[in-house]
Amino acid sequence: MRIALGIQYDGAAFHGWQAQPHGKTVQNVLEQALRQFAGGPVQTVVAGRTDTGVHGLGQVVHFDTPLARSEFSWVRGANAFLPPTVAVQWAQAVDDNFNARFDAFERTYYYVLYNHPVRSALLDGRVGWVYVPLDIALMREAAGHLLGHHDFSSFRSSECQAKSPEKHVYEISIEPRGHFIHFRFRANAFLHHMVRNFMGSLLAVGRGRYPPAWLAEVRDCRDRRVAAPTFMPDGLYLAQVGYPAHFAIPQPNLAAFPWSDVWAPH
Amino acid sequence: MRIALGIQYDGAAFHGWQAQPHGKTVQNVLEQALRQFAGGPVQTVVAGRTDTGVHGLGQVVHFDTPLARSEFSWVRGANAFLPPTVAVQWAQAVDDNFNARFDAFERTYYYVLYNHPVRSALLDGRVGWVYVPLDIALMREAAGHLLGHHDFSSFRSSECQAKSPEKHVYEISIEPRGHFIHFRFRANAFLHHMVRNFMGSLLAVGRGRYPPAWLAEVRDCRDRRVAAPTFMPDGLYLAQVGYPAHFAIPQPNLAAFPWSDVWAPH
Repeated sequence: MRIALGIQYDGAAFHGWQAQPHGKTVQNVLEQALRQFAGGPVQTVVAGRTDTGVHGLGQVVHFDTPLARSEFSWVRGANAFLPPTVAVQWAQAVDDNFNARFDAFERTYYYVLYNHPVRSALLDGRVGWVYVPLDIALMREAAGHLLGHHDFSSFRSSECQAKSPEKHVYEISIEPRGHFIHFRFRANAFLHHMVRNFMGSLLAVGRGRYPPAWLAEVRDCRDRRVAAPTFMPDGLYLAQVGYPAHFAIPQPNLAAFPWSDVWAPH
Repeated sequence: MRIALGIQYDGAAFHGWQAQPHGKTVQNVLEQALRQFAGGPVQTVVAGRTDTGVHGLGQVVHFDTPLARSEFSWVRGANAFLPPTVAVQWAQAVDDNFNARFDAFERTYYYVLYNHPVRSALLDGRVGWVYVPLDIALMREAAGHLLGHHDFSSFRSSECQAKSPEKHVYEISIEPRGHFIHFRFRANAFLHHMVRNFMGSLLAVGRGRYPPAWLAEVRDCRDRRVAAPTFMPDGLYLAQVGYPAHFAIPQPNLAAFPWSDVWAPH
């Protein structure tokens, strides 16, 4: 039978998602925990491979198993063998046709930024930090130029393996909350480093280096060299993956994070 | 001249506050950073020594220095030499009579608890976790028995070095916020492990093991063996230290943490 899992993890504790021989990735520790619980090898397929430092809040995987177990026993069983920086949030038996990667038609990322003259020690690795004041209105105007269907080559890492640089961005929202700024990015899919490159360029506008219209120019250049540097991964969270409703995939457990009131779907 | 600093740190990254030969304490790295910035040895006096795993949000220290520097340059300078898990939040020149330890007349601790069937990976080390539902009203009633001036020997670690087991607890508030429960403890001073022992006993009531009045019995026994086990340090924050107003010590930077709206003084 096929099982889907919702996974939460601290990206700062791992060398990204994808399995590596050295074993220090989220996929490595997850498959090892599932093997220990299931008593045999388990291969997972993930919705979105994340880089080193990028966190999982609503990551989704699927795997096949001959084992009949209750859904919550997969949660409890896997978590018993996982390190404290990874936790399965839900498990659900799914249709054998469900594919965590290929059925995903939408991804939502959050970026949490701490905008304060002095850095936060308690949120080290969990938030990005900019110490100069940022202009929210200018960043919102700039973000408008990134909405819609475009060739996003200007925001694409040279290591990107996507077949096409064309993606459709449905939403970018920017919400200040105290000294934090919450960025929400929703698209059909993202290129490698696309959100971190969006962040770098939005922050260049927010601190007054370029006017908002600069982002339309950068976008139209389709050239990575014109955009601002890639921003740090620390505040980036894969928050939600969208699937067709008939698969009945559970919502991510946003309650597991302090800003669930800001992060609830609008 | 005498300088006071407000310090924030991730307690999970250190073996407590107090300097040790192995060097992995907050005092060790702070004094080393100050020495590098000041170009000579610096000895700090701290408001409250915290144990391994206990976080600093509003910790205060003082030290003497022949160096004349602007207040913010102490912040920037120390932070440049500190690891990412410690950050000076403010610096202020103070009266030569000010003593961070002996002038403190009040301490406030927060405990953040995650009350959910599944543990949080992203808040590992930052929150305590209880998976069974807790009864807020019962815990509030129980907390009432801990208010006021008492001999708190029942909640005192065997390693406690305080001269007297008598302390005055001014306030215990318990505020649910989503799946988090925020406990606020304010007293003239706390015995060693007192807050974690309060937490252990309050949670025993919250999960229905004992009635609220049990805490009055435990308190009156003045015997550590009758109280519940010491609860994990993960969610414990030294939030604020109270000093006489004439020293004009700055307030802690609660904005540096996600729950600043819950944590603002009532």
